Amino acid sequence: MSAAFVHGVGTSRFGRQPGVGAPALVQQAVTEALDDAGVGDVRELDAVFAGTVFGAPGTAQRALQLLGITGVPILTFENACATSSTALHEARHAVLSGRFRRVLCLGVETMTLHFSGPITPEETDVEGRAGLALPGVYAMVASRYEHLYGLEPKALAAVSVKNRRHGALNPRAQHGAEVTAEEVLASRMVADPLTLLQCCDISDAATAAVIGGERGVGRDVRIAASALRSGELWDHRSTQPWGYELMARVAGDAWQEAGIGPEDVDLFEVHDAFTIGEITATEALGIAEPGGGCDLVLSGHTALGGRQPVNPSGGLLSRGHPLGATGLAQVAEAVWQVRGEAGARQVEGARVAAVETMGGGTAGIDGNGCVVVVLGG
Amino acid sequence: MSAAFVHGVGTSRFGRQPGVGAPALVQQAVTEALDDAGVGDVRELDAVFAGTVFGAPGTAQRALQLLGITGVPILTFENACATSSTALHEARHAVLSGRFRRVLCLGVETMTLHFSGPITPEETDVEGRAGLALPGVYAMVASRYEHLYGLEPKALAAVSVKNRRHGALNPRAQHGAEVTAEEVLASRMVADPLTLLQCCDISDAATAAVIGGERGVGRDVRIAASALRSGELWDHRSTQPWGYELMARVAGDAWQEAGIGPEDVDLFEVHDAFTIGEITATEALGIAEPGGGCDLVLSGHTALGGRQPVNPSGGLLSRGHPLGATGLAQVAEAVWQVRGEAGARQVEGARVAAVETMGGGTAGIDGNGCVVVVLGG
Repeated sequence: MSAAFVHGVGTSRFGRQPGVGAPALVQQAVTEALDDAGVGDVRELDAVFAGTVFGAPGTAQRALQLLGITGVPILTFENACATSSTALHEARHAVLSGRFRRVLCLGVETMTLHFSGPITPEETDVEGRAGLALPGVYAMVASRYEHLYGLEPKALAAVSVKNRRHGALNPRAQHGAEVTAEEVLASRMVADPLTLLQCCDISDAATAAVIGGERGVGRDVRIAASALRSGELWDHRSTQPWGYELMARVAGDAWQEAGIGPEDVDLFEVHDAFTIGEITATEALGIAEPGGGCDLVLSGHTALGGRQPVNPSGGLLSRGHPLGATGLAQVAEAVWQVRGEAGARQVEGARVAAVETMGGGTAGIDGNGCVVVVLGG
Repeated sequence: MSAAFVHGVGTSRFGRQPGVGAPALVQQAVTEALDDAGVGDVRELDAVFAGTVFGAPGTAQRALQLLGITGVPILTFENACATSSTALHEARHAVLSGRFRRVLCLGVETMTLHFSGPITPEETDVEGRAGLALPGVYAMVASRYEHLYGLEPKALAAVSVKNRRHGALNPRAQHGAEVTAEEVLASRMVADPLTLLQCCDISDAATAAVIGGERGVGRDVRIAASALRSGELWDHRSTQPWGYELMARVAGDAWQEAGIGPEDVDLFEVHDAFTIGEITATEALGIAEPGGGCDLVLSGHTALGGRQPVNPSGGLLSRGHPLGATGLAQVAEAVWQVRGEAGARQVEGARVAAVETMGGGTAGIDGNGCVVVVLGG
């Protein structure tokens, strides 16, 4: 195949949904994606590329059997927050190589099953257990950024305010309520300078997409590019904020493959697990120069109605961040936007969207993995 | 690429190694595999396809950074006991499609970190929590087999006796001591008719292989075929023992792709997590007719020195079954055998080997996934 397309997408609601369970969430997402793709019979699927971070072994098989999706190869990926973007990237390559004609991609996470509050670092995660869990890592990103370029608290707050405003237009969002900059900055300090309203919440959801190599009935969105790398070693000698170099490298791969640059993209869904993450992501993607991310968000460039909206879905801060389901949630938003189906949060005239998912997990390397996908065009 | 080859393999020791940890085990396995493949610089690797079942998110990245393996795409798969066979199968396809020139495959599991005794069923595993964990599932396999064909305890015991005898020749084996049929049958009952010495133990290990698309320095072993499917729904209307139909379907795929049949294979590594599993696997692979697996093992056909040795490494019962590391452990044995490097347990004149890994996890489907790989020829 010379190209791969997203034929259809679907998601459950996002939020703390204890007791709902992976099978029901998967059923909601997959049913919607199959309907959206016009797949009337699950036997049209050649394979399933699934992803979960904390889901039990066999989570995908257990849920999919209830939909009659059995017998085909079912792969399950883990790549931290980039888990289901990784599944999509791999599914795309499987389609491009001609191995499969139609692949179901699936992301699922039921975080409330495992955590009542923040993610507890694993026994083997010595950094995390010493306090350097992801809020701490991103706080260090902010500190480094402040040292390099200066960082005003109002710029961080502007990310939360913008994404909550976007999320208020998204009926599936976990945190649909708008917030003010004052509320963001006055909320409880989690890891200086990141306050509670600058940190994503734990969440339960499933997300799905049907990928194929042939144009279908006309609502397909072409995957113009996708790139994936893991991070390089990152230590006290690294001058850039954690994650920046990995994101920039993967974004460079994606722009090269797509044959376009960030200026050609109408909207972005990026990894705003913490406010500072969106600021560095916009720079790594090339929407702004290094150090220009604060002015970018403060200027309204990245708000709905601005030149290049970032996280029109509400992003991880507002829509929610169910780890293994997040990448395909971003892809779903991109597909809806490019099709003109995003309702009250539609980016006018959207033709090209880009998705960036950063998989963290350790501070010793510059990210476990990062995926950038370019859709449409 | 028209073919994919295993350039090199490596493993840690197998067994309960609490406190050693994934990074040290990975270092042992990967260092050996890279040396074996003649990879002098880790920058020759284009990607890593890793697998773990219970490992924490980022287990592969955390361990690989210590070896300087960073920056390339690192994928982590979960497919129950077939986890690292699945990684190998996918790596092979990535090489065949021309996407990567050289891929490191990795399996790692540190079960003693999570379990002091048997695997505790996950909260969402309602069958397992009700008692239908894998020993129970395989006990039902034995009951069904008994109903269909008759099943003498001495045939089950013969599998353990044979595989322990093989494992006694394997310096990396977890349980190297030989056992008698009387000892096997007199050991504590776990799930009728499966006694303790018919059940694999928990284990820690890492395993690795380097896969590529070009013949190297002459010790390469060709991957003649590999096949992967997930199970179909399996319930009270199914007439075959659990897992049989999936194994037979995947084996059929593999024989078709390889253009040979089981009669052309010199040795097998199969999924003997429980003794009955080896008996049904030998039938599903076509080494014996359905119902002929007991006579096959009792006749000595599958012992070292017999016509077609099964599990010359000692298998899961003797070498050990560190879930996510098992598939590549089987592949490593197959490679050593086909190269004539298996020492005291060498199968004379071995040219072709086949590996079968069955990934269980739920009784509601006929296996989460099964992989069959044909090597050599």
